[in-house]
Amino acid sequence: MMKKLNVGMIGGGFMGKAHSLAYAGMPMFFWPAPAIPHRHTVVDVNEGLAKDAAARLGFDNYATDWREVVNNPEIDVIDIVTPNNTHAEIAIAAAKAGKHIICEKPLALGAEQAKEMLEAVKAAGVKHAVAFNYRRTPAVALAKKYIEEGRIGKVLSFRGTYLQDWSADPNSPLSWRFQKKIAGSGALGDIGTHVVDYARYLVGEITDVNAMTKTWIPERPIQTGGIDKLGTVKAGSDDVPKAAVDVDDEFITMVKFDTGAIGTIEATRNAHGRNNFLTFEIHGEKGSLYFNYERRDELQVCFADDPSDAKGFRTVYSGPATPYGEGLWPIPALGIGYGETKIIETYDFFKAISEDTEFSPNFNDGYQIELIADAILESAEKGQWINLEKTAAAVK
Amino acid sequence: MMKKLNVGMIGGGFMGKAHSLAYAGMPMFFWPAPAIPHRHTVVDVNEGLAKDAAARLGFDNYATDWREVVNNPEIDVIDIVTPNNTHAEIAIAAAKAGKHIICEKPLALGAEQAKEMLEAVKAAGVKHAVAFNYRRTPAVALAKKYIEEGRIGKVLSFRGTYLQDWSADPNSPLSWRFQKKIAGSGALGDIGTHVVDYARYLVGEITDVNAMTKTWIPERPIQTGGIDKLGTVKAGSDDVPKAAVDVDDEFITMVKFDTGAIGTIEATRNAHGRNNFLTFEIHGEKGSLYFNYERRDELQVCFADDPSDAKGFRTVYSGPATPYGEGLWPIPALGIGYGETKIIETYDFFKAISEDTEFSPNFNDGYQIELIADAILESAEKGQWINLEKTAAAVK
Amino acid sequence: MMKKLNVGMIGGGFMGKAHSLAYAGMPMFFWPAPAIPHRHTVVDVNEGLAKDAAARLGFDNYATDWREVVNNPEIDVIDIVTPNNTHAEIAIAAAKAGKHIICEKPLALGAEQAKEMLEAVKAAGVKHAVAFNYRRTPAVALAKKYIEEGRIGKVLSFRGTYLQDWSADPNSPLSWRFQKKIAGSGALGDIGTHVVDYARYLVGEITDVNAMTKTWIPERPIQTGGIDKLGTVKAGSDDVPKAAVDVDDEFITMVKFDTGAIGTIEATRNAHGRNNFLTFEIHGEKGSLYFNYERRDELQVCFADDPSDAKGFRTVYSGPATPYGEGLWPIPALGIGYGETKIIETYDFFKAISEDTEFSPNFNDGYQIELIADAILESAEKGQWINLEKTAAAVK
Amino acid sequence: MMKKLNVGMIGGGFMGKAHSLAYAGMPMFFWPAPAIPHRHTVVDVNEGLAKDAAARLGFDNYATDWREVVNNPEIDVIDIVTPNNTHAEIAIAAAKAGKHIICEKPLALGAEQAKEMLEAVKAAGVKHAVAFNYRRTPAVALAKKYIEEGRIGKVLSFRGTYLQDWSADPNSPLSWRFQKKIAGSGALGDIGTHVVDYARYLVGEITDVNAMTKTWIPERPIQTGGIDKLGTVKAGSDDVPKAAVDVDDEFITMVKFDTGAIGTIEATRNAHGRNNFLTFEIHGEKGSLYFNYERRDELQVCFADDPSDAKGFRTVYSGPATPYGEGLWPIPALGIGYGETKIIETYDFFKAISEDTEFSPNFNDGYQIELIADAILESAEKGQWINLEKTAAAVK
Repeated sequence: MMKKLNVGMIGGGFMGKAHSLAYAGMPMFFWPAPAIPHRHTVVDVNEGLAKDAAARLGFDNYATDWREVVNNPEIDVIDIVTPNNTHAEIAIAAAKAGKHIICEKPLALGAEQAKEMLEAVKAAGVKHAVAFNYRRTPAVALAKKYIEEGRIGKVLSFRGTYLQDWSADPNSPLSWRFQKKIAGSGALGDIGTHVVDYARYLVGEITDVNAMTKTWIPERPIQTGGIDKLGTVKAGSDDVPKAAVDVDDEFITMVKFDTGAIGTIEATRNAHGRNNFLTFEIHGEKGSLYFNYERRDELQVCFADDPSDAKGFRTVYSGPATPYGEGLWPIPALGIGYGETKIIETYDFFKAISEDTEFSPNFNDGYQIELIADAILESAEKGQWINLEKTAAAVK
Repeated sequence: MMKKLNVGMIGGGFMGKAHSLAYAGMPMFFWPAPAIPHRHTVVDVNEGLAKDAAARLGFDNYATDWREVVNNPEIDVIDIVTPNNTHAEIAIAAAKAGKHIICEKPLALGAEQAKEMLEAVKAAGVKHAVAFNYRRTPAVALAKKYIEEGRIGKVLSFRGTYLQDWSADPNSPLSWRFQKKIAGSGALGDIGTHVVDYARYLVGEITDVNAMTKTWIPERPIQTGGIDKLGTVKAGSDDVPKAAVDVDDEFITMVKFDTGAIGTIEATRNAHGRNNFLTFEIHGEKGSLYFNYERRDELQVCFADDPSDAKGFRTVYSGPATPYGEGLWPIPALGIGYGETKIIETYDFFKAISEDTEFSPNFNDGYQIELIADAILESAEKGQWINLEKTAAAVK
Repeated sequence: MMKKLNVGMIGGGFMGKAHSLAYAGMPMFFWPAPAIPHRHTVVDVNEGLAKDAAARLGFDNYATDWREVVNNPEIDVIDIVTPNNTHAEIAIAAAKAGKHIICEKPLALGAEQAKEMLEAVKAAGVKHAVAFNYRRTPAVALAKKYIEEGRIGKVLSFRGTYLQDWSADPNSPLSWRFQKKIAGSGALGDIGTHVVDYARYLVGEITDVNAMTKTWIPERPIQTGGIDKLGTVKAGSDDVPKAAVDVDDEFITMVKFDTGAIGTIEATRNAHGRNNFLTFEIHGEKGSLYFNYERRDELQVCFADDPSDAKGFRTVYSGPATPYGEGLWPIPALGIGYGETKIIETYDFFKAISEDTEFSPNFNDGYQIELIADAILESAEKGQWINLEKTAAAVK
Repeated sequence: MMKKLNVGMIGGGFMGKAHSLAYAGMPMFFWPAPAIPHRHTVVDVNEGLAKDAAARLGFDNYATDWREVVNNPEIDVIDIVTPNNTHAEIAIAAAKAGKHIICEKPLALGAEQAKEMLEAVKAAGVKHAVAFNYRRTPAVALAKKYIEEGRIGKVLSFRGTYLQDWSADPNSPLSWRFQKKIAGSGALGDIGTHVVDYARYLVGEITDVNAMTKTWIPERPIQTGGIDKLGTVKAGSDDVPKAAVDVDDEFITMVKFDTGAIGTIEATRNAHGRNNFLTFEIHGEKGSLYFNYERRDELQVCFADDPSDAKGFRTVYSGPATPYGEGLWPIPALGIGYGETKIIETYDFFKAISEDTEFSPNFNDGYQIELIADAILESAEKGQWINLEKTAAAVK
């Protein structure tokens, strides 16, 4: 009999949908599954929304108080899909209750908070994951494989971007993502951290940053009512009162890696025409890689030692012959969507739980990324290089 | 209380997985759902596989005899995901039992069989669908919207292709897809019919065809044991006995539409480097469209009346502002995968059942497509134009 | 001392410009040059235009009577860049005068006329070329190299297109290109023959065609005064009188090759957003090729025997390591323009003259292409396959 | 009678070829020409090479001493296409002799030298140009037009790259481009300055830089004999002695503009698969632009105010409707090559001479770019922001 793990999910917005689909779909794709995720209870402070979420997302129960769920002995896994400012309190409580935890990114409002979370899960001995799901796009896992196998040689440089435009309109609302007290930071935490995760995953540890930030739209219409839909709901009229944005719309940083590689990372929410333009370009001594999440089935790779009359970037479609491919679809280009990245993430996390291994990226990775994010903000403010080794406090 | 419809699914291979994901995920995406699909029973002739499929795909029950399920009064919807040669018998029985039916494509082994199926569902008054899911890629639905709104003017020409390479290797096995008695035809039925569906959906009724077919690999290693994985499992050694392929590997046809438009349709399984290269290019009096399923988030559109210094194909990403977008992901390019096409298909079919409207493509469309497929084979054999109006027998 | 060959160029429009640039530039690129083209005399019936053309295009002399130039003993090469209906008379006279001839495409108004031209140059023993310059795009020459070296195996299918939109506007003028008596045919002769040239160059001899043609815009404003600029000059107002177009705007043909390969060729001038969309896709037993002249520095190639986790189309930029590359620019992607195709053509033709070898495509190729074009028109009219072997009359 | 200007060209390598083609071709494209460039004398220190260059490139005369040509009263224009370390001496002498000057980029070995050159041409009152020809790619001129017309609104950020791989092989020779005393700097001066030119042309003046540089291949085989072919000639064997590279292979810089915009500029010669990957991405308040010289016929533009269901990057091909298009080819995508950029540059420079206007980019631009390049090196060395206003010395 296959093991079942009961999930308590805190939050029921867009991310709750994505995670729920992954819980339902994971065993369909990866079979035998390491464990069957069972949608036990979903939480929303609003009872009506909670009830609705349970029906919609296929949970057996709903609740309005996350503490109750965190302490429910039937629950094995706590899934945190709430705004950033709530992650720490929930995660620390869940750790104390001995639950395995998967938490949406960014892990916390800053490194200090992340450190507390990391200490809590370490103390509790539970499994912990931060949901940087884009790392689990099969084409990105293929890039990792090439690098690990030495197929592009030593990495010299990394260029990562995350460009969006959903909030480029000055009339898109002041959702929680534009408020420092809830989000911690702006484009940096929301999307830039995904690129930082790619950089650490594919190249190595970032040791130094040197950054600029910009807030292009200094104030936005106050959002009234309703669920945050990432700004797709525009304020109805021009007389909606506005309030200040106190986070970054864009940042650019140069980075140095412990491997000697260098690079840049850039994220903005003011790039008209870029929807989810999460990219990297990597130059190695023996080859190059390019990936663009907008065309996520594909990885571009160039091998230096190809014949001179047939050298060039190959467009490789992920599929059965590439990582995770056996579990996914039978041929390449049937189509990897957002859901698949979450299905793979769920698979790997439930496998880590079942096999008692370490999932990556975990809270330590989340903490490191918070350190880097904090350093980026500090660098931008001071106008100088910030060395990470000096700023990081050890967690044992 | 939201209505629940019990599904009996006949077959549990790759397509069963895709459909199961759609049943689980549809209400997560489209809420309130027109009805909740409940995975009641899955059928496989092999009891072990059936049991396994139920556990994996989330069905409450399993069975080894499809007739039993078709006649189970608890079942509302029969989902047929078995090889082509079994569609007719199951569908006709299901119709007689008063079940709504969704059947994988192509509908039948030929037009004659399809006609019987159509007559059966008409007689029974049940809802019927053929699973040409690629029509429900959001970017394709956007193309339809543009055309209906007249934004590219009268359509002049249509060029559709479906190119694959998973069986381009002569050592890929002789699965059922290469056997006429099971598949009906080769690339034509398996993939070409999707393009025919696009042509009818986007342009109009096909009145004449003029075709060629080719079987590039005349014999293949006999497949022993195991589930068909579309040929991704190669025969282990060279001494596996081979048998003849009696279907087409490739076909090309010219077509005429009732609207005066002309075009070509082409499908092959021998196009190295093309994975799921389902494309169309449409030229209208006022604009053009291009779509490639390998980059399925995108639709290319050119409007003739753009300023002369800014005229060119636009890459439009489907998202909240395009068809089905409200229900899917909150911003464009988060990612449409194969699953989403099936989720949308399920949504529309369950809506048709709930609202007692006609789903499209239905068994009549499936029948028309079989007529066209038969005519393509006839044309290739005779080397001449075949007029469809003369060959089609009426179904009332 | 390097040999100099005096050129007499009949016509001075856009093509005259392109050829003149090639005469000036060829030795700069290919050195030592097989012979130095000297721009001796340019001809235009209008004396003012002729004088102007000489100054502009760098010819020493000008003339208004082409016969005078054809019979000038100082002239070595006659370059025919006039409308199609004049090619035959000039070429035959030039051959009789013992001049080497390069003639713009299509060679003639039809096969019969082309045959006379071919007989004339054969009788005279002069060198002859038809200016299907697109064959000399370096990336296309690379495709030829791959095929000849067996790197994509036996060719199974060929798909060629030539799509344009410069005359998609019903108000673009009735230039000579829309008049049968001057142009011979429409999109077929003007652009489709380039694709036929590709097909014969890359795959083999075409033995059968089965075609459709369409004239989408049945009448256009009469052009008054001025040089044909391919329709970029629009008729000034709606009250310009119109006259009938008696050639095709679009054609589609299926083709069979003597090698067993099959394919389609399609050309249209009504494809909004396609500017000079001259493409081919070739599927071979061991690989595939794709080329699009709009991105002419690039050839896409997929090799079947690449590792399964790194198989995909490579984007190879032509450059020093590919055909003609030593003579062109020092690194790939500095940029191949239209001019370079003409420079290479000039180089190869002057080399053929100097080394007394056969240039290809020559008048025989031009004649074969006319046979195919005639067969396409005949097939479209009759609605049936036309076999080329039966229609071709031998030329010895 | 059209004015003729005699050109004395100092140097006859790859750049000499490109310029010669432009002199021959410019009037063919732009007619009436502002003035006819006459190829009067070409100079090479080696008499054999000089003689050969004259024959090959179409010059009437050759010389071995550039001073003689600079002082020849028949010469109107001096064209400097020699390595960087010779620019200053020749240009200053030419200015004193009253010649108009076009000088290859980068202008000098550094800002100090550039300033002397600028002072010389100002004192002499001659016309002066720096050959940043990539600015004259028609698609780039179109980008400039959009920006000037406000079609993408206020520019927020600029991202420019110039990536190459011709010297990524550690065995490619130590040509002059890798020696500081001849080249001044490495990737920075050779290719990075083109991006700096784009940034200043399209966005505004750069006020601050913050950079990193890397020399990935610290030593290379000594080049023996022969003309520099950009490294395409590899050292024949492993026992060729090596010497140190003392310039950068790669640099990355963050930049601030006087307009408030920010950005990054990056150039490397170690990007396998990137041939001439000169790109920019510009985000404005009302739209975005993307350009990649490897596909130089195209400009990508997204307009923010497009309908929400049809918003996306347009691929606009330069042609008759875009800048310089009337003079070039009759339809878009016939093909812009490297030659065309030089032809347009020549046209604009000869027009500036004829009409007594200021050409841009001129020696002042060249000087500003040297200031920026020097600041980039200084910033990389010091690890801090460098403000340009403080470092620039005025030139009146």
